[in-house]
Amino acid sequence: MSSTSLVFSSREGHRAWLASQAALPAGFRVGAARFEFTPIEVPKPAKMTLTLIALDRPTPDFAALFTKNAFPGAPVIIGRKRLGAPALGAILINNKISNVCAPGGVEASERLCAAAAQALGLRATEILPSSTGVIGWRLPVEAMTAALPQAVAALAPGSALPAAEGIVTTDLFPKVRSAVVGGGRIVGIAKGAGMIEPNLATMLVYLLTDLAVPRETLRALLARAVDRSFNCMSIDSDTSTSDTVALVSSGAVPCLDLDVFEAALATVCCDLAEDVVRNGEGVRHVVRVTVSGAPSERTARAIGKAVINAPLFKCAVAGNDPNVGRLVQAVGKYVGANEPGLDLRRTRMVLGGIPIVQQGEFSLDPAKENALVSHLKQAELYASSPPKDGVFAPPIDFPRHERCVEIAIDLGTGSCSATVIGADLTHEYVSENADYRS
Amino acid sequence: MSSTSLVFSSREGHRAWLASQAALPAGFRVGAARFEFTPIEVPKPAKMTLTLIALDRPTPDFAALFTKNAFPGAPVIIGRKRLGAPALGAILINNKISNVCAPGGVEASERLCAAAAQALGLRATEILPSSTGVIGWRLPVEAMTAALPQAVAALAPGSALPAAEGIVTTDLFPKVRSAVVGGGRIVGIAKGAGMIEPNLATMLVYLLTDLAVPRETLRALLARAVDRSFNCMSIDSDTSTSDTVALVSSGAVPCLDLDVFEAALATVCCDLAEDVVRNGEGVRHVVRVTVSGAPSERTARAIGKAVINAPLFKCAVAGNDPNVGRLVQAVGKYVGANEPGLDLRRTRMVLGGIPIVQQGEFSLDPAKENALVSHLKQAELYASSPPKDGVFAPPIDFPRHERCVEIAIDLGTGSCSATVIGADLTHEYVSENADYRS
Repeated sequence: MSSTSLVFSSREGHRAWLASQAALPAGFRVGAARFEFTPIEVPKPAKMTLTLIALDRPTPDFAALFTKNAFPGAPVIIGRKRLGAPALGAILINNKISNVCAPGGVEASERLCAAAAQALGLRATEILPSSTGVIGWRLPVEAMTAALPQAVAALAPGSALPAAEGIVTTDLFPKVRSAVVGGGRIVGIAKGAGMIEPNLATMLVYLLTDLAVPRETLRALLARAVDRSFNCMSIDSDTSTSDTVALVSSGAVPCLDLDVFEAALATVCCDLAEDVVRNGEGVRHVVRVTVSGAPSERTARAIGKAVINAPLFKCAVAGNDPNVGRLVQAVGKYVGANEPGLDLRRTRMVLGGIPIVQQGEFSLDPAKENALVSHLKQAELYASSPPKDGVFAPPIDFPRHERCVEIAIDLGTGSCSATVIGADLTHEYVSENADYRS
Repeated sequence: MSSTSLVFSSREGHRAWLASQAALPAGFRVGAARFEFTPIEVPKPAKMTLTLIALDRPTPDFAALFTKNAFPGAPVIIGRKRLGAPALGAILINNKISNVCAPGGVEASERLCAAAAQALGLRATEILPSSTGVIGWRLPVEAMTAALPQAVAALAPGSALPAAEGIVTTDLFPKVRSAVVGGGRIVGIAKGAGMIEPNLATMLVYLLTDLAVPRETLRALLARAVDRSFNCMSIDSDTSTSDTVALVSSGAVPCLDLDVFEAALATVCCDLAEDVVRNGEGVRHVVRVTVSGAPSERTARAIGKAVINAPLFKCAVAGNDPNVGRLVQAVGKYVGANEPGLDLRRTRMVLGGIPIVQQGEFSLDPAKENALVSHLKQAELYASSPPKDGVFAPPIDFPRHERCVEIAIDLGTGSCSATVIGADLTHEYVSENADYRS
């Protein structure tokens, strides 16, 4: 999806590039405060960062999409109400605890909004709250209120990086993407590394622009951009209870060409979506699947999703093992269960430019096998090595390159297509989610 | 599901119990032959076992269900045709290569059926072929034909164990279950350890009985039994291209009570399904989820499946980590995406007898946390330990007990229920499917 193909040789190089992306549009300030507290449920010390994104003046022009999970977090419940408010003045984000199904969760978030509003001279309904982290635990409202003045004091224009760094949980690196449109900018930051198969939105994404686009247009453009980016990816097929993507315009710069704005917004969203997968828990290969020749875009996307969510295929990719039978299994599982009438006899599959299935039959030989292994190795972000203590941890905190495992599936039955982004299934994913107690 | 709760302290104890289960019904013989060959696609030596299950006389009374995967193996394509044949005389099974989407696959299987028929004095259409193993590779027809006389010579009545041992691939142990009905028996054997979320059948299951039940009744009973057993389980959410379950009656013993026969068949199927999960690739915890208070059985089953297929929850179980927020995520993901109108406010969730969610809200505290950890540890089949070479392998080749992680979810919105069986997601699963090249 990424228009550029970046290669980084060091953490410093990656951070310098992030800083260049992070210039804040006019009309915004960000600030954060980090503090320690003790959860009620598991009494051992934990750390939380409280992040503020504030507008110089409240704006009527904002949009937001939220998770479709039927157990939404309290901030999502409140956020849906905020869509009807006349204006947005600030976004208040915390990590570590997601405030989902916790007793008194909505009241806790509203108390924090009221405290932030008072500190910023706004109304409580002008604050959009967001939380991410452990599900089921209660927010430490007292400790968060006590940390608020520090976050307010830190508010500064210039860079979105303090916010991109403040919202992370298990992320290996912050994620920032931007685009210049005429005299203005769009800057997006994203958080998310696990529980990622968004349904109408992703973990936490904030898109800030100074380009003046009215509320209703902004909402329509965001829905379209999200559908082709965050809704086309999956790290582990789990849909978070907190997914939120917000787009806010300060209106400081006139928007002269809405088509250019929409294209820029789509690029920022697609690049961020790919960043989120590249930084996914335990991800060592990003997998890009393009399904074409489908009777509908919905079918193309569903088949792509079936491939990137098939555990056996994901394990094979992790091991640089071109076990392409597992790819066919995944396509056949989806079609057999959901669209059994679809004729697959003309199916072609290409992996890393190498044809592997034609007319629904495999053509494999030792030379192809070697070429497929090379393609998989080339797309590896880092090699896994057995750790002494049995707990696998990624040895990198920046992305070395943007190469993907490239899969093309042509069903030969229609003219629709879709591209989805996924990842492998690794020891590092299991260690992250089984070997550490939360 | 298991009516008994077995505990085994040694491999020998387990094998002795298997032998007691494996007594063949009247009218059947089994035999197997193991040999080495070199696949065309990846020229390194491999081993295959050819297994025969033969009837003393061809029977018109047989039933079979096959995978719904839209890329079915050649034996499945042939098997569907065999359902229309007047009689079944033998089943010919090979492991190592599944003969799926391989060039000339149907012809290869038919050639083997013809050779087996000639050796057994049957017609080719009286042979049901089955294959399991690598997808995409071609069967070594010459080597298999050469091994046939040895399998025929080994045919013997008495025990189904040689067949249960002959059909395995990555299975840790053979699987046999049986039931006595009046003067007759039902004996079932199963193979399957990965790519397991059957859709209308499971990997390879053969149910043999001497009780005389006519073909159409047999087929109806099998469909019902499979729906409540093999269709209610998942190891890794992948649906094999080769799933087959066959039920064959030799008719040697009159069936006096069809209800007792059906109940016995259901028990054998449910016990085998649970065995398949317990023996699943890398499985260290079997997870049993009962969903009640649902508006339909379909919804209850789908929610149970969503839980046992949620990677983050599966990882938490692997780590004996009661990260119950991930359980809620899984239920909410399914309902939000598929039945957004369902009211979840009365939802109760109980894990290991301990209430964790009531009226849609968590109630957690440190004492409950400790009790939940104990329940998870008690259900563990073996503890994982970091290997020196980084490749995790199960240290057991028999099941130590039949305890499960027990989850009850009451939606409080209806009167329907369903029980599904699943497993955790472990380093052993990743090692099995990523660290070994196929």
